[in-house]
Amino acid sequence: MLKNTEKTMEKIVALCKGRGFVYSGSEIYGGLANAWDYGPLGVELKNNVKRAWWKKFVQESPYNVGLDSAILMNRQVWVASGHVVNFNDPLIDCKSCKMRHRADKIVEEWNAVNRPGVSAEGMSNEALTAYIRENSIPCPNCGKCDFTEIRKFNMMFKTHQGVTEDSQNEVYLRPETAQGIFVNFRNIQRTTRRKVPFGVAQIGKSFRNEITPGNFIFRIREFEQMELEFFCKPGTDLEWFSYWRKYCHDWLSNLGLKEENLRLRDHQPEELSHYSKATTDFEYRFPFGWGELWGVADRTDFDLNAHQKESGESMEYFDPETGDKYIPYVVEPSLGADRVTLAFLIDAYDEELVDEAKNDVRTVLHLHPALAPIKCAIFPLSKKLSEPAWKVYEELSKSFMVEFDDTGSIGKRYRRQDEVGTPLCVTFDFTSPEDNSVTVRDRDTMEQERVEISRLKEYISQKIAY
Amino acid sequence: MLKNTEKTMEKIVALCKGRGFVYSGSEIYGGLANAWDYGPLGVELKNNVKRAWWKKFVQESPYNVGLDSAILMNRQVWVASGHVVNFNDPLIDCKSCKMRHRADKIVEEWNAVNRPGVSAEGMSNEALTAYIRENSIPCPNCGKCDFTEIRKFNMMFKTHQGVTEDSQNEVYLRPETAQGIFVNFRNIQRTTRRKVPFGVAQIGKSFRNEITPGNFIFRIREFEQMELEFFCKPGTDLEWFSYWRKYCHDWLSNLGLKEENLRLRDHQPEELSHYSKATTDFEYRFPFGWGELWGVADRTDFDLNAHQKESGESMEYFDPETGDKYIPYVVEPSLGADRVTLAFLIDAYDEELVDEAKNDVRTVLHLHPALAPIKCAIFPLSKKLSEPAWKVYEELSKSFMVEFDDTGSIGKRYRRQDEVGTPLCVTFDFTSPEDNSVTVRDRDTMEQERVEISRLKEYISQKIAY
Repeated sequence: MLKNTEKTMEKIVALCKGRGFVYSGSEIYGGLANAWDYGPLGVELKNNVKRAWWKKFVQESPYNVGLDSAILMNRQVWVASGHVVNFNDPLIDCKSCKMRHRADKIVEEWNAVNRPGVSAEGMSNEALTAYIRENSIPCPNCGKCDFTEIRKFNMMFKTHQGVTEDSQNEVYLRPETAQGIFVNFRNIQRTTRRKVPFGVAQIGKSFRNEITPGNFIFRIREFEQMELEFFCKPGTDLEWFSYWRKYCHDWLSNLGLKEENLRLRDHQPEELSHYSKATTDFEYRFPFGWGELWGVADRTDFDLNAHQKESGESMEYFDPETGDKYIPYVVEPSLGADRVTLAFLIDAYDEELVDEAKNDVRTVLHLHPALAPIKCAIFPLSKKLSEPAWKVYEELSKSFMVEFDDTGSIGKRYRRQDEVGTPLCVTFDFTSPEDNSVTVRDRDTMEQERVEISRLKEYISQKIAY
Repeated sequence: MLKNTEKTMEKIVALCKGRGFVYSGSEIYGGLANAWDYGPLGVELKNNVKRAWWKKFVQESPYNVGLDSAILMNRQVWVASGHVVNFNDPLIDCKSCKMRHRADKIVEEWNAVNRPGVSAEGMSNEALTAYIRENSIPCPNCGKCDFTEIRKFNMMFKTHQGVTEDSQNEVYLRPETAQGIFVNFRNIQRTTRRKVPFGVAQIGKSFRNEITPGNFIFRIREFEQMELEFFCKPGTDLEWFSYWRKYCHDWLSNLGLKEENLRLRDHQPEELSHYSKATTDFEYRFPFGWGELWGVADRTDFDLNAHQKESGESMEYFDPETGDKYIPYVVEPSLGADRVTLAFLIDAYDEELVDEAKNDVRTVLHLHPALAPIKCAIFPLSKKLSEPAWKVYEELSKSFMVEFDDTGSIGKRYRRQDEVGTPLCVTFDFTSPEDNSVTVRDRDTMEQERVEISRLKEYISQKIAY
């Protein structure tokens, strides 16, 4: 019987744990609900994803600059942004079995079975309560329909800065990086002498006390965001929205994400937040279903306006060319670093039937070479060649993440590297000391090529360019 | 009168705020005590520092691999590490003026004036209380000596994960990244198939609820660490201690930190923690005095042992060559990313008297080119040349952080770049379209050289190599 080569989350998670991409957090202590640690290969992969984003969104963009603001901010920031009042999950308890649920999730799951296509998004807590009662939606745990009223649960993690644990010292772990950009808008504009339009990009951790995290690193409480806030003149915002929508799409495509696994869902007018003129969700087809990767939104002047009101500081921009004064509009592409890393991993994962007769399947990650954790692996054909091969390793490691492996057959070593996505394997053989050349094998085509050692660095550079 | 060219914190902070290296956090809301945001230039500088560390400590090291573990960990981690019980500041209140102080700081400050050379380090709370009473050390605020007993204040930030705020859900923001490495020791060893000796390197945020943060980004509550935990066979630990001590020293020197501003302070036997066999503090001469940058410590098997006891999971390593089983010893070089970034900034800062007659001083950051936020600035000599000069900018920005400036005289543009440490300035003049060359000016020597545009990329690469 042929091996089952279906792509499942179980296989992806097993590969991640087994090869050192991602481990369960605090595993020796039984873990911490849905916390994950990036292992030696995972940290390289994620760093490469972050670098590829920074390269396109900061380094190469003539419009954008970077920022790295603190996780702990003044409490008023979250009053102004609306998070203190509105960033809630609607929780209900089953009176019968005491299980706690998210009311909107119960409704959505029930709808999926009983009323496909009907969405719970945007429903008020009153509407959710009524909907559950009218339809006698049962508790997913015990089957009864006897719930408490909905309680609002704020998803920001709270802590105290300073000695006393009173409300004056209360601070939040930021639930998004965006606000760090908004409160610095004037500082950045002034010190970089930028003219509108310009954008500010930031990569950093955010925290949300999710009641139902899950699906591996898809929804986690401590996660990393890559956000751009692009400031433009009111009236030009829909043009810029299209520009960044396309720019984001190109970024994913150029890094090899398959079009068939990606869909761009434009929000209908009735779906839009009250302050948004346009929103597109980029969704990826995960093994567990479509899940959001990137949200691109025209947020108008909502955020800067809110901070101007709350802080009393002007957020206006003075246009030196026209003499106009205005609060810029904002286009925000907001991407989850962990999610998109997972998407790249899943998209790259493949089990290829190499030899049907032997039922021989190779597992391979067809990662874009710029994202691959290890760029090149050096194999001495025999242990006798380890010393000169090691010199090649040492030289290349000045430029790239390189691995050295002198254990097992060359075939086994290839498979090990295929499984973690290494684009190039270099075999140092008995002829190498004479012709100063090595055999380079390509991960995807499995073809081999003889390359001079002195040309290796350039050869690899070209292969991994992005 | 000649300008005062003394290097002061005031000047460094003013430059940082004025040019977009570092802003006060949440500034429009009056800030948050000692929180700082890295602006467009600061984030590039700090990223370059982190990259230079990762390059030498992970990429080029044949021994080490990387990790990125979560900030939120199981509470038992901090029980095992001793942080729950021991990570305290000794606080006392003045009964007269109600001011709160750190008892050890009061003693140290009083000693500095009255008993120079006498240290408060390692004094128990009982000893501190007795010392304050015996010497009638006064409250620095009101001058009376009438204090409460010492209270232990745990410096870990506490929060709650999940819906209820009970002790079961209590988690801490990690006060150091090291423990994330220790708890993953077995996972990493197994999945990378590494043999001891090997090391695990990590860069990430840590949080300490310091009562007295200060000195700009030197001591902050939310800070970033670059830590290596190097696992070796007991008995070889002091050799490896010397190896990493030198490796760290070389890293600082190769990035241009001046020897005269650096001192390595080896702990005396009586100063050592009970579990440590050797410790060296790397201290930098900040304008406010010597301050610790890097701690290199032989921590023996203290940490792995503690986790083995607390978790019940074996931390033993089986040596396949000798058949030995042992808990490895650990050598830990622990560096503060914010501190070392500040040290590089200060060390690079200079005010040079360019023209004595005109009392003309240029401010320049002599940063190592690998650390400089912007590698190269492109100046069209006239606005008429902006279009072809922009093409040079676009091409170079694919490889480096580049800036384009067409405002003001060339002299002013040089000064602007000098002040932020840009190593190379490229002027595109009226001859450039004809000879396809530009004039490159060196930040440090201020010498100029004519370079072909087609050779620019390689020219810059060589200058910034590290």
